Amino acid sequence: MIKNNDTICAAITAYGIGAVSIVRVSGPKALEIGDKIFVGKHKLSDSPTHRIYYGRLINNIDDVLVSVFRKPNSYTGEDSIEISHHGNFIITKKILQLIIANGARLAEPGEFTKRAFLNGKIDLLQAEAVSELIQSRSDIAVQSARKQLDGILSDKIREIKDYLVEIIGLLELELDFVEDDIELVDKTVLINKVENIIELIDNLLLTFQRGKLIYEGINVLIIGRPNVGKSSLLNKIVNDERAIVSDIPGTTRDVIKEEIFIDGTLFRFFDTAGLRNSSDVIEEEGIKRAKNLIEKSDIIIHLVEFDYFNENLLDFGISTKNKTIVKVLNKSDLLTKNQMDFVETQKEMIKISAKTGEGIDKLFEMFKNYLIDQQVYSEDVAVISNIRHLNSLKSAKESLINAKQSLIDNQSNEFVAIDLRKAANSLKELTGEITSEEILNSIFSKFCIGK
Amino acid sequence: MIKNNDTICAAITAYGIGAVSIVRVSGPKALEIGDKIFVGKHKLSDSPTHRIYYGRLINNIDDVLVSVFRKPNSYTGEDSIEISHHGNFIITKKILQLIIANGARLAEPGEFTKRAFLNGKIDLLQAEAVSELIQSRSDIAVQSARKQLDGILSDKIREIKDYLVEIIGLLELELDFVEDDIELVDKTVLINKVENIIELIDNLLLTFQRGKLIYEGINVLIIGRPNVGKSSLLNKIVNDERAIVSDIPGTTRDVIKEEIFIDGTLFRFFDTAGLRNSSDVIEEEGIKRAKNLIEKSDIIIHLVEFDYFNENLLDFGISTKNKTIVKVLNKSDLLTKNQMDFVETQKEMIKISAKTGEGIDKLFEMFKNYLIDQQVYSEDVAVISNIRHLNSLKSAKESLINAKQSLIDNQSNEFVAIDLRKAANSLKELTGEITSEEILNSIFSKFCIGK
Repeated sequence: MIKNNDTICAAITAYGIGAVSIVRVSGPKALEIGDKIFVGKHKLSDSPTHRIYYGRLINNIDDVLVSVFRKPNSYTGEDSIEISHHGNFIITKKILQLIIANGARLAEPGEFTKRAFLNGKIDLLQAEAVSELIQSRSDIAVQSARKQLDGILSDKIREIKDYLVEIIGLLELELDFVEDDIELVDKTVLINKVENIIELIDNLLLTFQRGKLIYEGINVLIIGRPNVGKSSLLNKIVNDERAIVSDIPGTTRDVIKEEIFIDGTLFRFFDTAGLRNSSDVIEEEGIKRAKNLIEKSDIIIHLVEFDYFNENLLDFGISTKNKTIVKVLNKSDLLTKNQMDFVETQKEMIKISAKTGEGIDKLFEMFKNYLIDQQVYSEDVAVISNIRHLNSLKSAKESLINAKQSLIDNQSNEFVAIDLRKAANSLKELTGEITSEEILNSIFSKFCIGK
Repeated sequence: MIKNNDTICAAITAYGIGAVSIVRVSGPKALEIGDKIFVGKHKLSDSPTHRIYYGRLINNIDDVLVSVFRKPNSYTGEDSIEISHHGNFIITKKILQLIIANGARLAEPGEFTKRAFLNGKIDLLQAEAVSELIQSRSDIAVQSARKQLDGILSDKIREIKDYLVEIIGLLELELDFVEDDIELVDKTVLINKVENIIELIDNLLLTFQRGKLIYEGINVLIIGRPNVGKSSLLNKIVNDERAIVSDIPGTTRDVIKEEIFIDGTLFRFFDTAGLRNSSDVIEEEGIKRAKNLIEKSDIIIHLVEFDYFNENLLDFGISTKNKTIVKVLNKSDLLTKNQMDFVETQKEMIKISAKTGEGIDKLFEMFKNYLIDQQVYSEDVAVISNIRHLNSLKSAKESLINAKQSLIDNQSNEFVAIDLRKAANSLKELTGEITSEEILNSIFSKFCIGK
């Protein structure tokens, strides 16, 4: 286990105009440094935990409130003080300089949370949740990060790991009696248990897509022929005039990105250049980019008009395997009665008029149904939220499949136990029970300073 | 006196990405509301002041630290709680909604500080200093606002007011004995005393320019013929390439603004279109703007080159009365030996080469001397910092001059006392001893929300 024995400091509030900013000092010398720079009625180092003192910093820097937290009852688990001062970056900087001159150093990004982890206040999944919680931009992402910080994912992982450790225990017990040739547990029961664990892990792996939608938002690509009304539709959706709308085909050359929240979830819309074979180099570039965008889209709105409502994206050489494609017919306001009657028979197609706004509600209904289909709102379900989780679970699963095969092949229990232990270790890495400086650095370097 | 008896709330930290944000609730129901929304081991309303409690907000919004401040020992002088939560605006918004749903309302801009004033924690000059302190962008401005918050200006005003009240007392004492025709104080002594007060006020009025320089920074205008190197000089000064530099005369059409700090003081540089009669409408507009800028400039750098070093800004119809004009000769690197020798005799002119950087140090020396001349760094001197201060002092002075004249004219003491009381009231308005809702609104509406 890595130990960090020096005292660190950083501003923990955001920069900008605000009434109050806060500097945190954490580490063995926090209270001692506090007493050197703070003049109040009481000595901080004599204070009980969770007390607040009013006073002045030396050099007349500011009048402040100092909060005292004594280990282990602080965010980091170490002795800490928090200096609440007038919100001005010049003052914040002077306070940090003063603290550093008295024996602390500036905290690295994520270092307060890293210490909270190292001191056993939270596990690694919870530490990651802190960062997610601060950076989450949508309601649903905040709720999900909040649950992860509460340990819903940690508990799930530990539950699986404990089950695994129990099986390993059984195998080891049998190993002790191997010379007596006693089979304590039936092979089939063992295989069954391993299969159960694989299923539990599979269920978690399935939540990766959901986690991605929750934290990164849902990418919606609007694609279609030139002048079919892609920009107008985008404008209607975001109720904004940012995209350039004109009657000249091929106006939208750049990929335009707009963001809105639907039911507390982030939807990101991309508008693309029209789909056609163009001699215009710039436009060809735009079409190329549109094709690339399809890769990272969750929903593709294929916008058509009546004259070619039957077209398929494959006609343009665009493969949409595993994507949610929604065909939307625009310009419904220009349809004749006969056309309208015919169109009504096409149940799967959403009919809209970007111009009059007709049918836009149906589009939003589709977005909301997508959220329900993807189980974005599932309550109290552990969700994995990043690639580290995915990879650890995948390697745990791999080891479990190997173990299962060894059991089927009637290999020695010793052999099976090795794979099961590997699987358990993958899970321990996930929660940080087993870790390395390398893993920690890669996680905490993504944090902001002051967290 | 205006009373505000409801409970208010607002975020008191800046928006943006930060580990921690804080919501303050202040007013008679602060602790009661706290107990409704906070689940911890202790009841907040039973807590002593200056304690911190860890717990959760209801609806699983976040885990938080709640600080308890009991009246009068809080920022506002009222019962207050401060809820420290994970720094995410979505969470902050939810907390504010929760507090409002439980009986508080959103604070108006400056309302916490307004309550601190109404509850006698600080006077009006100190309240203004809080806003200055938060918004100050330079070291020197922070220091000055800090002093005003410490009461240096308040003390000065009160000293003058007390002296004035003493004189009024003398006059009133005499009024009691008016029928006995006893003259308790010699007229000359009274006149002398009033003159003393006028002098004290004059000294304060003189600090207005200094206060303006400290808080608003020093405006430096670079002016001169086209292609004399104004943009190049500006670039050299700010060490940046933001202004467009070219050899085509008349390139700089917009007034370019750059800001740097010299000795902790803000200097704001304006680059202007070249001075000449141009047929180009856009450029004429630029020249017009340059002339307007002269009005608000503190230092005008009149940039010339050798061929017309003798020119005067009046040649261009520009009046520079009461301005600090510094003539600067550019392109010193292009001078012949003879030209150089001649130029050396022009002691008042600073010789530079914006191209090589030669002489730029002399320019900075001039800026620093300007700060010394303007006494920007005077220690422990009360400085008035805004137009309200200026106007109140001016009207106090006016009343004092009237009083003095009445004394000279041998008017009745009653008459003199009226003017002296008017002067005292002007000073009381300054510190907020006398105030009106109108004055308070005009002061606090300039604050940011959360202060």
